[in-house]
Amino acid sequence: AATLTKRYSITVLPGDGIGPETISVAKDVLKLIGSLEGIEFGFQEMPMGGSALDLTGVPLPDETLSAAKQSDAVLLGAIGGYKWDNNPKHLKPETGLLQLREGLKVFANLRPATVLPQLVDSSTLKKEVAEGVDLMVVRELTGGIYFGKPRGIGTNENGEEIGFNTEVYASYEIDRIARVGFETAWKRNKKLCSVDKANVLEASMFWRNRVTAIASEYPDVELSHMYVDNAAMQLVRNPKQFDTILTNNIFGDILSDEASMITGSIGMLPSASLGASGPGLFEPIHGSAPDIAGQDKANPLATILSVAMLLKYGLGEENAAKRIENAVLDTLDKGFRTGDIYSAGNHIQKLVGCKEMGEEVLKSVEGQV
Amino acid sequence: AATLTKRYSITVLPGDGIGPETISVAKDVLKLIGSLEGIEFGFQEMPMGGSALDLTGVPLPDETLSAAKQSDAVLLGAIGGYKWDNNPKHLKPETGLLQLREGLKVFANLRPATVLPQLVDSSTLKKEVAEGVDLMVVRELTGGIYFGKPRGIGTNENGEEIGFNTEVYASYEIDRIARVGFETAWKRNKKLCSVDKANVLEASMFWRNRVTAIASEYPDVELSHMYVDNAAMQLVRNPKQFDTILTNNIFGDILSDEASMITGSIGMLPSASLGASGPGLFEPIHGSAPDIAGQDKANPLATILSVAMLLKYGLGEENAAKRIENAVLDTLDKGFRTGDIYSAGNHIQKLVGCKEMGEEVLKSVEGQV
Ligand SMILES: CC(C)[C@H](C(=O)O)[C@@H](O)C(=O)O
Ligand SMILES: CC(C)[C@H](C(=O)O)[C@@H](O)C(=O)O
Repeated sequence: AATLTKRYSITVLPGDGIGPETISVAKDVLKLIGSLEGIEFGFQEMPMGGSALDLTGVPLPDETLSAAKQSDAVLLGAIGGYKWDNNPKHLKPETGLLQLREGLKVFANLRPATVLPQLVDSSTLKKEVAEGVDLMVVRELTGGIYFGKPRGIGTNENGEEIGFNTEVYASYEIDRIARVGFETAWKRNKKLCSVDKANVLEASMFWRNRVTAIASEYPDVELSHMYVDNAAMQLVRNPKQFDTILTNNIFGDILSDEASMITGSIGMLPSASLGASGPGLFEPIHGSAPDIAGQDKANPLATILSVAMLLKYGLGEENAAKRIENAVLDTLDKGFRTGDIYSAGNHIQKLVGCKEMGEEVLKSVEGQV
Repeated sequence: AATLTKRYSITVLPGDGIGPETISVAKDVLKLIGSLEGIEFGFQEMPMGGSALDLTGVPLPDETLSAAKQSDAVLLGAIGGYKWDNNPKHLKPETGLLQLREGLKVFANLRPATVLPQLVDSSTLKKEVAEGVDLMVVRELTGGIYFGKPRGIGTNENGEEIGFNTEVYASYEIDRIARVGFETAWKRNKKLCSVDKANVLEASMFWRNRVTAIASEYPDVELSHMYVDNAAMQLVRNPKQFDTILTNNIFGDILSDEASMITGSIGMLPSASLGASGPGLFEPIHGSAPDIAGQDKANPLATILSVAMLLKYGLGEENAAKRIENAVLDTLDKGFRTGDIYSAGNHIQKLVGCKEMGEEVLKSVEGQV
């Protein structure tokens, strides 16, 4: 008999540190959602990062990249650890991540920073400053100084040793990320703030020109420009002024991390990296936290919410995504907290480990009507 | 008869917006201190920034730079304004500032971020996170992507339009700023945190290598390394962990502004830019605030504290510097506040304008025993 079951293949890259723990929980959530929504997921686990280095000698084996390319979406845990910190560049776990982003051509990195009412106290910002923060950083991910050439360590014309990198953007790279920025803003509160350093850098002047040109395609979205040093201040002064922030690779790296810390719960924040076509890459923004790895202490919610982004942005399964988001909120409402978001002395809260948090989310998914 | 009066020539660059107002007040403080300490100051006011553009067609006239070079120290108000924001690069006020830094060869930018007990409530951070913050950012100021070549807007080999800049550091540039970093830390709490992006950028790997090499000259200073994205987070999470931060030009621009906002009172923060020899450049870190210019609303304390840095770091007049710092604290203790640091509803505080704040500081200087 014909079946209406949808099938998706997911490449799963548990990676290093707490990655395997949070991924294991997140996979269970995805499976349950699938069974409830009539979706079948095929999982292929592949090595990546430091564990791939140990296993195969490289941080991104060819087999991992080609499996990822052939799948419908890629789910990544976390990579890196002290063990590989002093490796030469081509043998760093981080290099594997950059190769993966480049290989999948995922040029648009979406990083939400949301202060949930349940977690407003986790922020180091005063309650009135933190509450209600809900912004999205749209970061260019496959260009700029991360990938620009020439780069290296060498000598200059005076025979002095130098280290150098190139910040470079071509018009098509700015245009396509600007469009993602405008479209993202359009679906949100229609305010896009493009961040650059156009008072000093030609690369930023060019960025600003292109973003301004693309703006004419989106008359409904209000565009503003801000210098990166000011943006770093404004995120601390009044983060609620931002809706959608559009910026380059390196500024996006810095500002999205700053924004995430403003929410006070980086163990909660997912991210999506998308290309023009092909599979997207979904990962929590937190690192591999080697100090708590293997102790069942990690907060799996960022990875679970990355699964929600995978469903929404990667597969277009908005309904399934919404169910996961609601289940996470429900689990927090019930008081369950991993160590990173737990406030000692709060009697409504219950301290749990990674696995138990995952089980509670599963219960909340099932409990929904 | 022979006289023991010391004489210093100071080039004063009032600049744009609120610059002239705060400079006028700060000059009065300097004169008074001079008369009390037996120091004579000769002032030469020169055009710079947007006002120089209007007057002479360039943001840094040759006469201004040569006067500055021949003086014992340079005091700058603030530069920039909406009026010149869309000027081409060589006609931007900011370009004049970069030319001044380059011309004076002031490669070391010291930016303190201190939360004064009197102003802890001005921070958007929770009191327990903000109180006691006392850190110093040592920013490299005449190298890196701000000055690196090649740079420009052009076309690449595929005929696509591109904007590009070069991040480049030679070993001597890193070595000398690293030494300033270690020496600054040594005079403080002997903890130096060097911030880079060595997991991605070769320029940062080289930076880290050189800083680590220089560390052997300063066995008493504890050196650590941090990635810039993490530093942007840690400044929000727990700024008290930092004593002295050492970093490159662009990361220093971003992180010092973020740190300044953490104190909640950027109208209070001075900076010093120093070279190997020759006059230093002293300026508040705030901008020209065109929206409140000419209204006697500006906070002159950052410029007054810049005068204290001028005395301490520029002229070696530590005693005079200390008197100014104490007078500023005394004025705050008496409750005087400009609008930016005033909390409505606090009955101890008295809202004053720029001039009155200056007069109160003068009284506090005179009142000291
Ligand atoms: C691990 C590192 C290469 C990476 C980056 O800089 O992009 C990380 O900080 C991130 O933001 O995803
Ligand atoms: C005005 C600008 C060129 C300058 C800089 O980026 O250095 C300013 O932001 C600063 O930090 O002094």
